[in-house]
Amino acid sequence: MLEELKKKVYEANMLLVHYGLVKLTWGNVSGIDRKTGLFVIKPSGVEYDKLTLQDMVVVDLEGNVVEGKYNPSTDTATHLELYKAFTKIGGVAHTHSSWATSWAQAGLGIPCYGTTHADYMYGEIPCVRNLTIEEIDKAYEKNTGLIIAEYFKNRDYIAMPAVLCRNHGSFTWGVDAYDAVQNAVVLEESAKMAAYSRIINPFINPAPQELQDKHYYRKHGANAYYGQKTKS
Amino acid sequence: MLEELKKKVYEANMLLVHYGLVKLTWGNVSGIDRKTGLFVIKPSGVEYDKLTLQDMVVVDLEGNVVEGKYNPSTDTATHLELYKAFTKIGGVAHTHSSWATSWAQAGLGIPCYGTTHADYMYGEIPCVRNLTIEEIDKAYEKNTGLIIAEYFKNRDYIAMPAVLCRNHGSFTWGVDAYDAVQNAVVLEESAKMAAYSRIINPFINPAPQELQDKHYYRKHGANAYYGQKTKS
Amino acid sequence: MLEELKKKVYEANMLLVHYGLVKLTWGNVSGIDRKTGLFVIKPSGVEYDKLTLQDMVVVDLEGNVVEGKYNPSTDTATHLELYKAFTKIGGVAHTHSSWATSWAQAGLGIPCYGTTHADYMYGEIPCVRNLTIEEIDKAYEKNTGLIIAEYFKNRDYIAMPAVLCRNHGSFTWGVDAYDAVQNAVVLEESAKMAAYSRIINPFINPAPQELQDKHYYRKHGANAYYGQKTKS
Amino acid sequence: MLEELKKKVYEANMLLVHYGLVKLTWGNVSGIDRKTGLFVIKPSGVEYDKLTLQDMVVVDLEGNVVEGKYNPSTDTATHLELYKAFTKIGGVAHTHSSWATSWAQAGLGIPCYGTTHADYMYGEIPCVRNLTIEEIDKAYEKNTGLIIAEYFKNRDYIAMPAVLCRNHGSFTWGVDAYDAVQNAVVLEESAKMAAYSRIINPFINPAPQELQDKHYYRKHGANAYYGQKTKS
Repeated sequence: MLEELKKKVYEANMLLVHYGLVKLTWGNVSGIDRKTGLFVIKPSGVEYDKLTLQDMVVVDLEGNVVEGKYNPSTDTATHLELYKAFTKIGGVAHTHSSWATSWAQAGLGIPCYGTTHADYMYGEIPCVRNLTIEEIDKAYEKNTGLIIAEYFKNRDYIAMPAVLCRNHGSFTWGVDAYDAVQNAVVLEESAKMAAYSRIINPFINPAPQELQDKHYYRKHGANAYYGQKTKS
Repeated sequence: MLEELKKKVYEANMLLVHYGLVKLTWGNVSGIDRKTGLFVIKPSGVEYDKLTLQDMVVVDLEGNVVEGKYNPSTDTATHLELYKAFTKIGGVAHTHSSWATSWAQAGLGIPCYGTTHADYMYGEIPCVRNLTIEEIDKAYEKNTGLIIAEYFKNRDYIAMPAVLCRNHGSFTWGVDAYDAVQNAVVLEESAKMAAYSRIINPFINPAPQELQDKHYYRKHGANAYYGQKTKS
Repeated sequence: MLEELKKKVYEANMLLVHYGLVKLTWGNVSGIDRKTGLFVIKPSGVEYDKLTLQDMVVVDLEGNVVEGKYNPSTDTATHLELYKAFTKIGGVAHTHSSWATSWAQAGLGIPCYGTTHADYMYGEIPCVRNLTIEEIDKAYEKNTGLIIAEYFKNRDYIAMPAVLCRNHGSFTWGVDAYDAVQNAVVLEESAKMAAYSRIINPFINPAPQELQDKHYYRKHGANAYYGQKTKS
Repeated sequence: MLEELKKKVYEANMLLVHYGLVKLTWGNVSGIDRKTGLFVIKPSGVEYDKLTLQDMVVVDLEGNVVEGKYNPSTDTATHLELYKAFTKIGGVAHTHSSWATSWAQAGLGIPCYGTTHADYMYGEIPCVRNLTIEEIDKAYEKNTGLIIAEYFKNRDYIAMPAVLCRNHGSFTWGVDAYDAVQNAVVLEESAKMAAYSRIINPFINPAPQELQDKHYYRKHGANAYYGQKTKS
């Protein structure tokens, strides 16, 4: 079932390790098949150096396990809410990568200080609000997803494919699982360089708006000219 | 003698290198067999890239070498006191990992700023007091262990499996040698991200108590639901 | 066509990865054949772990693609302007390496604090001005090159083979593609150590001028005595 | 000639790369044969990934090349002065490792904040004075060595086998080339953790003297008990 998708999701999970975004079991990637409404996700608590393609779990959009010998990631309910709210995405990645998580722990969004960030993400990467005690007690993981969806209700989740969950970590998304992981790479590097830049000069401002616009639209939308063909 | 335990302790020692927690000879892991009261530990001053399974040393709880061609780690007396004080643990790890040691050198405990820390360790990771001149002069390594045990006398060493020794380094423990090393990974990453978070925002507070509780009890105790089966 | 140059430029591109100066597609190296006026450059948006020698693109100094199945790097027009303005150089490298880019995001030049920097680059590594809205809107990449050329109009681009583009990244150059990459290594290490030095002591001054002179002229010019033979 | 020493010095040079202490050509290690008064050193400006055992150069204590096809390191005159002043040492290492060099660029000695440092080096690692213009102009590398020797005239160079050269880099030494490299590892890690500790807590003091004494004498001198046998 969904063998090709499982392979892609497995490989995307292993890329988290390759890019140094994950230690022990602290991260997971999923990918969805929009036709069947089923998504594939990493099993819970399995370490990356023991993870195999056969360990992937298939889940439906009610959260039922459809295939797989393991429990799916405890963060499955968060992925599910993102797939329901963000109907154009095909993949989601969750990590505790060091710099992105440190901004989340600091409770601050990441300003756009340069083109590395602007090439992929338009504007400040948001840090969403804390969950209330009630939201934590009941359906914590689902509520984590709902809070992200709430934030993006009137915002463009395609232009900003990343979010920081306060005192926790990050979620990124994209057209597929690979794209979600690539955005996790961009997020971590942007988070690191934003911190470095403020260490070097505590008085900096975000990059000029015209430069942010130029770089974002050089890679996205109808007039994009970066790479070998225009992304949809 | 204790061939299986020796293998596990050897592998746990080598994991310190794999996880980047140790340089030269600055670290050691041990594991205990509670039935015989014997524990296996790394030899003193042997570099990790020359360490073999056969070099492991077997010691009893009076500190006598029972088997092995080498002297055991100079920190053996500290491990021994931890095994005596913390009767439910099966493994101990000592490292000078960069960020944990820097908090120890700074003389500060590590506040819980996020869920990476909260998933494994409940509350602030303590930095215990300095040894007195007398405690240093006589039985330094034994007293290092006694000071840790003193701190945890009325505290839960299962919920907080890590400690910083002032101006020195860290000890972590767990159900076995592997678990002790895993906690050393958690400690180092938490120490690093706590420093990063305070660089980004010097005015932060610890994570909300309800979030710390949620994450700790999601992985530990009767209602745990993380991973594939509940840990005892 | 230009097979030897293509091989050298391909290898220089891969060195960016080897030296940890590039993530995903964020960098490119070119090399020019001054006799034909053609230069070889990395294709746009191709990831480094998929890049092959055959993917290299040959471009002339009007910006026309002369050979190659791919579009050349979007930064091609910047490389081209540098080749036109700096007639003695044979290679150009562009990266978003973390520390150099963070100085660019901070909007500051990198003072010369020590001999690692002074051995290769004479004086402060400049951070050039922002582009105007008009310069961004029309021929952004070409104008990026023109602004660099403008800065160096009455300055020695051989003695300072590096520049920071504000809120963006860096360009370095040299006698060939390899030398340009080597200067990117020097830039990143100098940028990193300059930040570290100011963290350790916020009140430092640049290295004494006589020490900067000594190290630069030990490796460059008529009286150079470093290495196995004097570079031209 | 001196084949065994050449092998050891070559391997010690390559260890600089293994331990991440050197980039490009920025470092060199030598070892001396006290009977013949000859020392072996890395050639000047040869990159580490091309360095072979046969490239090593043999030099006498007047600075004459006795064997070797290459020029010796430009820092040879510094090594030579250290061998003349420090008659009990057998090896010298020079690096531009990032954190040690940053302390040198900051113009500050490295206080002893913990046992990692105290285990190998007794007290603050010194940063020696700047050279005068005259000392730079004439026999710069020789004067670098003389300034170090001047500093240690009435100090114990065995108890403190490391020094920072202001705005430049570090020299370390030991009983042989390997020991000198090991001290370079200790220096870099101590430099890094000292900076981290001051970031975490800007108001810290050096480690208590009694703890520094305990750790240093646990590994050195008549009552040493660390490792498998007492070092002389």
